[in-house]
Amino acid sequence: MTDAILGADASLGFIGHVETPYKTLSECPKRVGADGPECAVVLNAPWDRALQGIEQFEWIELFLWFHKARRDLLIIEPNHGNGPRGVFSLRSPVRPNPIAVTTVTLIARQGNRLIVRGLEALDGTPLLDLKPGRCPLA
Amino acid sequence: MTDAILGADASLGFIGHVETPYKTLSECPKRVGADGPECAVVLNAPWDRALQGIEQFEWIELFLWFHKARRDLLIIEPNHGNGPRGVFSLRSPVRPNPIAVTTVTLIARQGNRLIVRGLEALDGTPLLDLKPGRCPLA
Repeated sequence: MTDAILGADASLGFIGHVETPYKTLSECPKRVGADGPECAVVLNAPWDRALQGIEQFEWIELFLWFHKARRDLLIIEPNHGNGPRGVFSLRSPVRPNPIAVTTVTLIARQGNRLIVRGLEALDGTPLLDLKPGRCPLA
Repeated sequence: MTDAILGADASLGFIGHVETPYKTLSECPKRVGADGPECAVVLNAPWDRALQGIEQFEWIELFLWFHKARRDLLIIEPNHGNGPRGVFSLRSPVRPNPIAVTTVTLIARQGNRLIVRGLEALDGTPLLDLKPGRCPLA
Protein backbone atom coordinates (compact mmCIF):
# COMPACT_ATOMS: atom_id res chain seq x y z
CA MET A 1 0.00 0.00 0.00
CA THR A 2 1.17 3.53 -0.64
CA ASP A 3 0.29 6.79 1.04
CA ALA A 4 1.39 8.66 -2.06
CA ILE A 5 -1.48 10.51 -3.64
CA LEU A 6 -2.16 9.68 -7.25
CA GLY A 7 -2.66 12.98 -9.04
CA ALA A 8 -5.81 13.95 -10.91
CA ASP A 9 -4.06 14.71 -14.17
CA ALA A 10 -6.90 13.97 -16.57
CA SER A 11 -10.60 13.32 -16.31
CA LEU A 12 -12.69 10.53 -17.74
CA GLY A 13 -16.32 10.75 -18.73
CA PHE A 14 -18.56 7.72 -18.53
CA ILE A 15 -20.29 7.16 -21.87
CA GLY A 16 -22.58 4.39 -20.63
CA HIS A 17 -22.51 1.19 -18.58
CA VAL A 18 -22.82 -2.58 -18.87
CA GLU A 19 -25.70 -4.78 -17.77
CA THR A 20 -24.69 -8.27 -16.60
CA PRO A 21 -26.10 -11.02 -14.34
CA TYR A 22 -23.33 -10.37 -11.75
CA LYS A 23 -24.64 -8.17 -8.94
CA THR A 24 -21.64 -8.48 -6.57
CA LEU A 25 -17.90 -8.80 -7.15
CA SER A 26 -17.90 -12.31 -5.71
CA GLU A 27 -20.44 -13.40 -8.34
CA CYS A 28 -18.23 -12.24 -11.22
CA PRO A 29 -16.64 -15.23 -12.95
CA LYS A 30 -12.90 -15.19 -13.58
CA ARG A 31 -13.28 -15.81 -17.28
CA VAL A 32 -16.35 -16.04 -19.50
CA GLY A 33 -16.18 -17.39 -23.04
CA ALA A 34 -18.25 -16.63 -26.11
CA ASP A 35 -20.81 -19.12 -24.77
CA GLY A 36 -21.45 -16.97 -21.68
CA PRO A 37 -24.78 -15.29 -20.93
CA GLU A 38 -26.06 -12.40 -23.01
CA CYS A 39 -25.14 -9.03 -21.55
CA ALA A 40 -25.84 -5.48 -22.70
CA VAL A 41 -23.58 -2.49 -23.33
CA VAL A 42 -25.72 0.64 -23.00
CA LEU A 43 -24.55 3.98 -24.42
CA ASN A 44 -25.85 7.32 -23.17
CA ALA A 45 -26.86 10.02 -25.66
CA PRO A 46 -25.17 11.55 -27.59
CA TRP A 47 -22.32 9.01 -27.47
CA ASP A 48 -24.56 6.33 -29.01
CA ARG A 49 -24.25 8.21 -32.32
CA ALA A 50 -20.58 7.19 -32.41
CA LEU A 51 -21.62 3.52 -32.77
CA GLN A 52 -22.29 4.06 -36.48
CA GLY A 53 -20.62 1.18 -38.35
CA ILE A 54 -20.10 -1.08 -35.33
CA GLU A 55 -22.53 -3.72 -36.64
CA GLN A 56 -19.97 -5.09 -39.09
CA PHE A 57 -17.65 -6.34 -36.34
CA GLU A 58 -17.83 -9.73 -34.69
CA TRP A 59 -15.62 -8.84 -31.71
CA ILE A 60 -15.40 -5.56 -29.88
CA GLU A 61 -13.08 -4.34 -27.14
CA LEU A 62 -14.78 -2.70 -24.18
CA PHE A 63 -12.89 -0.22 -22.01
CA LEU A 64 -14.40 -0.29 -18.52
CA TRP A 65 -13.74 1.64 -15.34
CA PHE A 66 -13.42 -0.74 -12.39
CA HIS A 67 -15.05 1.65 -9.93
CA LYS A 68 -14.90 -0.84 -7.06
CA ALA A 69 -11.16 -1.54 -7.34
CA ARG A 70 -8.60 -0.24 -4.82
CA ARG A 71 -6.12 2.21 -6.33
CA ASP A 72 -3.57 2.46 -3.51
CA LEU A 73 -1.78 -0.88 -3.79
CA LEU A 74 1.63 -1.29 -5.43
CA ILE A 75 2.53 -4.83 -4.34
CA ILE A 76 0.04 -7.65 -3.86
CA GLU A 77 0.08 -11.35 -3.11
CA PRO A 78 -1.60 -13.07 -6.06
CA ASN A 79 -3.89 -16.04 -5.47
CA HIS A 80 -1.59 -18.35 -7.43
CA GLY A 81 1.09 -18.05 -4.74
CA ASN A 82 4.75 -17.54 -5.68
CA GLY A 83 5.02 -14.54 -3.38
CA PRO A 84 4.37 -10.81 -3.67
CA ARG A 85 4.37 -9.09 -7.05
CA GLY A 86 4.11 -5.54 -8.33
CA VAL A 87 0.65 -4.78 -9.68
CA PHE A 88 2.14 -3.83 -13.08
CA SER A 89 3.42 -7.40 -13.48
CA LEU A 90 -0.11 -8.75 -12.93
CA ARG A 91 -3.40 -8.41 -14.78
CA SER A 92 -5.26 -7.93 -11.49
CA PRO A 93 -8.10 -5.34 -11.44
CA VAL A 94 -6.27 -3.66 -8.52
CA ARG A 95 -4.11 -0.88 -10.01
CA PRO A 96 -3.60 2.89 -9.73
CA ASN A 97 -5.77 3.57 -12.80
CA PRO A 98 -8.27 0.67 -12.89
CA ILE A 99 -9.01 0.56 -16.61
CA ALA A 100 -10.05 -2.83 -17.93
CA VAL A 101 -10.03 -3.89 -21.56
CA THR A 102 -12.04 -6.95 -22.46
CA THR A 103 -12.97 -8.46 -25.81
CA VAL A 104 -16.57 -9.62 -26.26
CA THR A 105 -18.54 -11.06 -29.15
CA LEU A 106 -21.13 -8.75 -30.63
CA ILE A 107 -24.48 -10.50 -31.07
CA ALA A 108 -26.74 -7.61 -32.09
CA ARG A 109 -27.26 -3.87 -31.94
CA GLN A 110 -30.58 -2.54 -30.66
CA GLY A 111 -30.35 1.25 -30.95
CA ASN A 112 -28.12 2.45 -28.12
CA ARG A 113 -27.72 -1.11 -26.75
CA LEU A 114 -25.24 -3.71 -27.89
CA ILE A 115 -25.99 -7.32 -26.99
CA VAL A 116 -22.75 -9.17 -26.31
CA ARG A 117 -21.38 -12.43 -24.88
CA GLY A 118 -18.12 -13.08 -23.06
CA LEU A 119 -18.39 -10.36 -20.42
CA GLU A 120 -17.51 -11.04 -16.78
CA ALA A 121 -17.86 -7.53 -15.31
CA LEU A 122 -20.04 -6.39 -12.44
CA ASP A 123 -23.52 -5.18 -13.38
CA GLY A 124 -23.44 -1.39 -13.73
CA THR A 125 -19.71 -1.07 -14.43
CA PRO A 126 -19.12 2.29 -16.20
CA LEU A 127 -18.14 2.26 -19.88
CA LEU A 128 -15.24 4.45 -21.07
CA ASP A 129 -14.76 3.44 -24.69
CA LEU A 130 -15.25 0.69 -27.22
CA LYS A 131 -13.38 -0.26 -30.38
CA PRO A 132 -13.47 -2.94 -33.05
CA GLY A 133 -11.65 -5.99 -31.67
CA ARG A 134 -8.54 -7.40 -33.25
CA CYS A 135 -8.67 -10.96 -32.03
CA PRO A 136 -11.39 -13.26 -30.64
CA LEU A 137 -11.83 -13.04 -26.87
CA ALA A 138 -8.15 -12.31 -26.26
CA MET B 1 -18.62 17.18 -33.55
CA THR B 2 -20.77 17.42 -30.44
CA ASP B 3 -21.44 20.31 -28.09
CA ALA B 4 -22.39 17.85 -25.38
CA ILE B 5 -20.04 18.09 -22.44
CA LEU B 6 -18.35 14.86 -21.46
CA GLY B 7 -18.60 14.58 -17.69
CA ALA B 8 -15.65 14.34 -15.34
CA ASP B 9 -16.81 11.15 -13.66
CA ALA B 10 -13.41 9.77 -12.64
CA SER B 11 -9.87 11.04 -12.51
CA LEU B 12 -6.69 9.53 -13.88
CA GLY B 13 -3.23 9.97 -12.45
CA PHE B 14 -0.20 9.85 -14.70
CA ILE B 15 2.31 7.31 -13.38
CA GLY B 16 5.07 8.24 -15.83
CA HIS B 17 5.64 8.91 -19.53
CA VAL B 18 7.24 7.47 -22.63
CA GLU B 19 10.38 8.67 -24.41
CA THR B 20 10.39 8.14 -28.18
CA PRO B 21 12.13 9.65 -31.23
CA TYR B 22 8.81 11.22 -32.38
CA LYS B 23 8.62 14.88 -31.40
CA THR B 24 5.47 15.82 -33.33
CA LEU B 25 2.27 13.91 -34.19
CA SER B 26 3.16 14.00 -37.89
CA GLU B 27 6.42 12.18 -37.16
CA CYS B 28 4.65 9.30 -35.39
CA PRO B 29 4.60 6.24 -37.62
CA LYS B 30 1.31 4.43 -38.17
CA ARG B 31 2.69 1.10 -37.05
CA VAL B 32 6.06 0.11 -35.60
CA GLY B 33 7.13 -3.51 -35.31
CA ALA B 34 9.44 -5.23 -32.87
CA ASP B 35 12.33 -4.03 -35.05
CA GLY B 36 11.51 -0.38 -34.35
CA PRO B 37 13.81 1.99 -32.45
CA GLU B 38 14.46 1.58 -28.74
CA CYS B 39 12.15 3.71 -26.63
CA ALA B 40 11.84 4.15 -22.87
CA VAL B 41 8.91 3.86 -20.48
CA VAL B 42 9.74 5.95 -17.40
CA LEU B 43 7.85 5.46 -14.13
CA ASN B 44 7.62 8.13 -11.45
CA ALA B 45 8.16 7.21 -7.80
CA PRO B 46 6.54 5.49 -5.99
CA TRP B 47 4.76 3.75 -8.92
CA ASP B 48 8.07 2.24 -10.12
CA ARG B 49 7.89 -0.12 -7.12
CA ALA B 50 4.89 -1.81 -8.77
CA LEU B 51 7.18 -3.02 -11.61
CA GLN B 52 8.43 -5.87 -9.38
CA GLY B 53 8.29 -9.06 -11.47
CA ILE B 54 7.92 -7.37 -14.88
CA GLU B 55 11.32 -8.57 -16.10
CA GLN B 56 9.99 -12.05 -16.81
CA PHE B 57 7.68 -10.88 -19.60
CA GLU B 58 8.63 -10.53 -23.24
CA TRP B 59 5.65 -8.36 -24.20
CA ILE B 60 3.93 -5.71 -22.18
CA GLU B 61 0.79 -3.70 -22.79
CA LEU B 62 1.13 0.03 -22.24
CA PHE B 63 -1.92 2.16 -21.42
CA LEU B 64 -1.28 5.70 -22.64
CA TRP B 65 -3.26 8.94 -22.46
CA PHE B 66 -3.39 10.58 -25.88
CA HIS B 67 -3.27 14.11 -24.48
CA LYS B 68 -3.19 15.73 -27.93
CA ALA B 69 -6.30 13.97 -29.26
CA ARG B 70 -9.64 15.78 -29.76
CA ARG B 71 -12.41 14.45 -27.51
CA ASP B 72 -15.45 16.15 -29.07
CA LEU B 73 -15.91 14.13 -32.27
CA LEU B 74 -18.53 11.41 -32.67
CA ILE B 75 -18.37 10.83 -36.44
CA ILE B 76 -15.25 11.14 -38.55
CA GLU B 77 -14.20 10.52 -42.14
CA PRO B 78 -11.42 7.93 -42.01
CA ASN B 79 -8.45 8.22 -44.37
CA HIS B 80 -9.32 4.93 -46.05
CA GLY B 81 -12.48 6.47 -47.55
CA ASN B 82 -15.79 4.57 -47.50
CA GLY B 83 -17.58 7.52 -45.92
CA PRO B 84 -18.18 8.76 -42.37
CA ARG B 85 -18.00 6.39 -39.41
CA GLY B 86 -18.69 6.56 -35.71
CA VAL B 87 -15.49 6.82 -33.69
CA PHE B 88 -16.42 3.66 -31.73
CA SER B 89 -16.29 1.65 -34.97
CA LEU B 90 -12.73 2.87 -35.61
CA ARG B 91 -9.43 2.49 -33.79
CA SER B 92 -8.62 6.18 -34.37
CA PRO B 93 -6.92 8.06 -31.50
CA VAL B 94 -9.80 10.57 -31.68
CA ARG B 95 -12.40 9.47 -29.09
CA PRO B 96 -14.21 10.84 -26.00
CA ASN B 97 -11.77 9.12 -23.62
CA PRO B 98 -8.48 8.90 -25.56
CA ILE B 99 -6.94 5.85 -23.90
CA ALA B 100 -4.53 3.88 -26.08
CA VAL B 101 -3.40 0.33 -25.45
CA THR B 102 -0.32 -0.83 -27.31
CA THR B 103 1.79 -3.97 -27.00
CA VAL B 104 5.57 -3.53 -27.02
CA THR B 105 8.51 -5.89 -26.61
CA LEU B 106 10.42 -5.52 -23.38
CA ILE B 107 14.17 -5.37 -23.98
CA ALA B 108 15.47 -4.50 -20.51
CA ARG B 109 14.64 -2.91 -17.20
CA GLN B 110 16.94 -0.20 -15.83
CA GLY B 111 15.53 0.76 -12.44
CA ASN B 112 12.44 2.89 -13.10
CA ARG B 113 12.99 2.74 -16.89
CA LEU B 114 11.84 0.00 -19.24
CA ILE B 115 13.57 -0.19 -22.61
CA VAL B 116 11.08 -1.33 -25.25
CA ARG B 117 10.61 -1.64 -29.01
CA GLY B 118 7.46 -1.40 -31.08
CA LEU B 119 6.19 1.93 -29.76
CA GLU B 120 4.81 4.60 -32.12
CA ALA B 121 3.62 7.22 -29.60
CA LEU B 122 4.58 10.86 -29.34
CA ASP B 123 7.56 11.62 -27.10
CA GLY B 124 6.29 12.60 -23.66
CA THR B 125 2.93 10.83 -23.89
CA PRO B 126 1.63 10.22 -20.33
CA LEU B 127 1.56 6.65 -18.99
CA LEU B 128 -1.57 5.38 -17.20
CA ASP B 129 -0.85 1.70 -16.65
CA LEU B 130 1.08 -1.30 -17.87
CA LYS B 131 0.39 -5.03 -17.76
CA PRO B 132 1.98 -8.26 -18.96
CA GLY B 133 1.04 -8.70 -22.63
CA ARG B 134 -0.99 -11.63 -23.87
CA CYS B 135 0.08 -11.73 -27.48
CA PRO B 136 3.05 -10.39 -29.48
CA LEU B 137 2.54 -6.86 -30.81
CA ALA B 138 -1.20 -7.33 -31.28
